[in-house]
Amino acid sequence: MNSQIENSFQKTKAIKNRYGKVEFPDQAPWNEAINLLLSHKSVRSYKADPLPEGTLETLLAAAQSAATSSNLQLWSLVAITDPIKKTELAKIAGNQKHIEQCPLFLVWLADLSRNQRMGAEEGVEMEVMPFVETFLVAAIDAALAAQNAVIAAESLQLSTVYIGAMRNNPEKVAELLQLPPEVFGVFGLCVGYASPDIKAEVKPRLPQAAIAFHEVYGNAEEKKLRISYDREMAKFSERNEMVADTWTNRVLGRMGKLSGMNGREKLMGILNSMGFPLR
Amino acid sequence: MNSQIENSFQKTKAIKNRYGKVEFPDQAPWNEAINLLLSHKSVRSYKADPLPEGTLETLLAAAQSAATSSNLQLWSLVAITDPIKKTELAKIAGNQKHIEQCPLFLVWLADLSRNQRMGAEEGVEMEVMPFVETFLVAAIDAALAAQNAVIAAESLQLSTVYIGAMRNNPEKVAELLQLPPEVFGVFGLCVGYASPDIKAEVKPRLPQAAIAFHEVYGNAEEKKLRISYDREMAKFSERNEMVADTWTNRVLGRMGKLSGMNGREKLMGILNSMGFPLR
Repeated sequence: MNSQIENSFQKTKAIKNRYGKVEFPDQAPWNEAINLLLSHKSVRSYKADPLPEGTLETLLAAAQSAATSSNLQLWSLVAITDPIKKTELAKIAGNQKHIEQCPLFLVWLADLSRNQRMGAEEGVEMEVMPFVETFLVAAIDAALAAQNAVIAAESLQLSTVYIGAMRNNPEKVAELLQLPPEVFGVFGLCVGYASPDIKAEVKPRLPQAAIAFHEVYGNAEEKKLRISYDREMAKFSERNEMVADTWTNRVLGRMGKLSGMNGREKLMGILNSMGFPLR
Repeated sequence: MNSQIENSFQKTKAIKNRYGKVEFPDQAPWNEAINLLLSHKSVRSYKADPLPEGTLETLLAAAQSAATSSNLQLWSLVAITDPIKKTELAKIAGNQKHIEQCPLFLVWLADLSRNQRMGAEEGVEMEVMPFVETFLVAAIDAALAAQNAVIAAESLQLSTVYIGAMRNNPEKVAELLQLPPEVFGVFGLCVGYASPDIKAEVKPRLPQAAIAFHEVYGNAEEKKLRISYDREMAKFSERNEMVADTWTNRVLGRMGKLSGMNGREKLMGILNSMGFPLR
């Protein structure tokens, strides 16, 4: 098949999967890498198959190739394969069984301690450490790195899912991984081969017009766009999970009640006690 | 050339660029997508050439395809092409001229306001909003999305650089982009074609052993690894910028003194005043 026609066909399909029915510029550029990015699905059921040798090193090289603010490299990673540890981490995350199933579980860390140790070794007081800015830089560094690892994994036909529920109990995570002060497990990441029973489609997102703006913030049609997305998500959930529900209902359920936070409403105090004063 | 040999050659070169002299597993998997990730360089000088039609839509589709915590989609984007606005944003960032040069400047937003408006429209109080956890989710969502856009851009031979200095004056950014409360410009991103005079190499990173651990945190050889990285970075800076300096010296310079924060030590108070109580 002509590769330009093939590209155009692939693009139309990927955009339809991601947004439902949508107008998208014919001229919008496309290639295999972009197709890979658009094909992302979070996977919550894994085969026991181990990863090919050297996979962690490749994922890590990809992760370290992401930008890092001022090259400070304020993140670290603990790779978990020990079944006992994965079981403990799954418990913290409200018994998410995929944490136990996946052959490799990565805990991504906002890490001020390495550069703090450098300061101690060199006799320099690191004045920037206690500020929320520095914590934010570390969390963003970790996120950029992790996303590169996700792309690398998916390019190798591996699947992933981020586990925000490490923040349900950051102190327990720190204890299990023997984290020093000023190190915080921002999120986990399951890596492995998807179970063959996983048939989930790509999840639709809000229309571009609802989240991206030109020059100034906002779109007067926001509510209309939300309602059109609600219809897409209801159809998607009906096709994939048998219970039709709108995006609006899901967000209201998740953000309306403190109980949806599973203890994460205590995060500020916990961070303070872990060595992040967040001034 | 045999594609397996080609792959192996490409891998050896990319790993050497990223880490200097390094032992890397022969078996570590490799492909074109991973090569793209490893090839990242931040670029700070751009041609005036505009982007091909539809590029923003493609970058945005890639960005929206990244994972987002509980599908809450707590991020937004303002795309800036107006030269006057770019000049103002460059000033905020300490006169980084590449913000004016690049044809497209993206400001990535942690955005609680969209779902807050949903709550108001649906008569539901969104109890989770005031917590540091929710702000962190929004900032991470924005970072994952932005990193996908970076990968998509680089796959199209475009270059990028993140601009953390949007946080030098978040209130001024909010004023310029007409951001409502509960929306915060986490960072900017220049997108464009690199100037032909840009000859920068890929920047080396810390050895993998210094940032990634197995089962528990830490490496007793940390200081030795830092010193070996210092040598790589001194050689790199000599080759690329004519002033040899170690990583240690750069980090001490950046993190040792409050003055290195360019006002960002005030971020907590500013976030509070912008609608993020960060409880």
